[in-house]
Amino acid sequence: MRTSLDSADPAHQPRGSLTVVGIGPTGCRGMMTPDVREAIWQAEDLVGFEGYLNLLNKAVAPGNRHHFGLGDEVARCHHAIGLAAEGRRVVMVCSGDGGIYAMGSLVLETIASHHHREDRLAQGIELVMMPGITAMQALSAAAGAMLGHDFCAISLSTLLTPRETIWKRVTHAVAGDFVMALYNPRSRQRATFLQEVIDHCRAHRSATTPVAVGRALGSDQQTVVLHPLGEINTETVDMHTTLIVGNSQSCIHEMAGQRFAYTPRGYGGARLV
Amino acid sequence: MRTSLDSADPAHQPRGSLTVVGIGPTGCRGMMTPDVREAIWQAEDLVGFEGYLNLLNKAVAPGNRHHFGLGDEVARCHHAIGLAAEGRRVVMVCSGDGGIYAMGSLVLETIASHHHREDRLAQGIELVMMPGITAMQALSAAAGAMLGHDFCAISLSTLLTPRETIWKRVTHAVAGDFVMALYNPRSRQRATFLQEVIDHCRAHRSATTPVAVGRALGSDQQTVVLHPLGEINTETVDMHTTLIVGNSQSCIHEMAGQRFAYTPRGYGGARLV
Repeated sequence: MRTSLDSADPAHQPRGSLTVVGIGPTGCRGMMTPDVREAIWQAEDLVGFEGYLNLLNKAVAPGNRHHFGLGDEVARCHHAIGLAAEGRRVVMVCSGDGGIYAMGSLVLETIASHHHREDRLAQGIELVMMPGITAMQALSAAAGAMLGHDFCAISLSTLLTPRETIWKRVTHAVAGDFVMALYNPRSRQRATFLQEVIDHCRAHRSATTPVAVGRALGSDQQTVVLHPLGEINTETVDMHTTLIVGNSQSCIHEMAGQRFAYTPRGYGGARLV
Repeated sequence: MRTSLDSADPAHQPRGSLTVVGIGPTGCRGMMTPDVREAIWQAEDLVGFEGYLNLLNKAVAPGNRHHFGLGDEVARCHHAIGLAAEGRRVVMVCSGDGGIYAMGSLVLETIASHHHREDRLAQGIELVMMPGITAMQALSAAAGAMLGHDFCAISLSTLLTPRETIWKRVTHAVAGDFVMALYNPRSRQRATFLQEVIDHCRAHRSATTPVAVGRALGSDQQTVVLHPLGEINTETVDMHTTLIVGNSQSCIHEMAGQRFAYTPRGYGGARLV
């Protein structure tokens, strides 16, 4: 999105810009789009979660850094909008895709809220949203082609969404036979919910359904493991893990000691090969 | 995925490679990942739908080109695998993400099928899958942050999937309150299905729900329009269009004559601002 929020008042010159970018799952160079790389290079100010900013080398991201902790998301938005309103070229750094389980919608929600309160802070800021490779895409490709047919993404985090809403989505995703990507699957405070989700999948899908489990996707430390649904152990999963549960057609194929998983597009008589 | 399909037989030297890449929605330079760009640059042979290969300038993609038409997907796979089996460095070019409604899963299905038939053609090929920005990501960002909370992707094409399977997915996506990205939404042969899907959404979601409609995403010809669900006209939609239908929380915000749409992560009392 490139949206200039200029007021019609000629006294209001275009001020700064706020670009929300996704740097890919772990900020690895090979998966970061050129648009995002260029925006980061040009930024006067980089705002983001400390862990994400630390993924960016000073040589490619020379701007001033404004670190925030987890849980400081609202303050992060206000700070970024405030800097842009001062006329600065600001980049909000997110992992994955800046619009998927990231800061994109909160930035817009914050600006909309300002506007409703007739706070003119955000007026005149040029807003740009840039997509990036999100974890499920890197995981699907590393495992084979898990997202080869209709799929959904569900965050299991109950911090901002009631557990009942998430559970309703899980049950409909399973009933609709969607391939299902699970973000924020498990935390210390939420140790058993993922197991309940997996149990529900097991009750409705074959025990041989492939489940891809990925960590540190795109980095040198990347691990991707394929489990049959019937054998997955959720104890090893944490918040830095992404899972993809296959649908009724997904399969694991072994060849020469290697395994890959894919979801075909054709079904039954419509299979192509 | 980097998988060497070497047989244990030492007489079988590693042969060629087959890399399935996604070049983003319209092959625009700014959204193509460096890994994909490098693979295309290094390719001895580029295999793909003519329309996608034509998006790549000879200066960045100097390899031999093997054009295929729409509907020739199986032949495309066999040809690419055959070239790789001859020891060549082959890239299969897809638009968007090579693993999402593209050739990734068909390549794996073809190789698995070969293996079952003990056809050794695919043995020894190094297979690599590389993700790319898919249309819904570019559309969501161009519109604001439509994919800001749980979402699904559904292809309305009935060529490979029975209409009943698709309809079941649509109804569960609506019942689960997923943001819904619709690929291949409408063709001349399938002129009314999209309208039925939209009618179903209208029966269950507010008439003010934002719907983003995008074409030629990422290119100079990009068009992105936001409609309220109650007012969208499906007659103008074709196979080159991507749609995103918001969920119950998605909203359109207008400021200084610009409109953007987003889906907040927080619900009700959990809203952040």
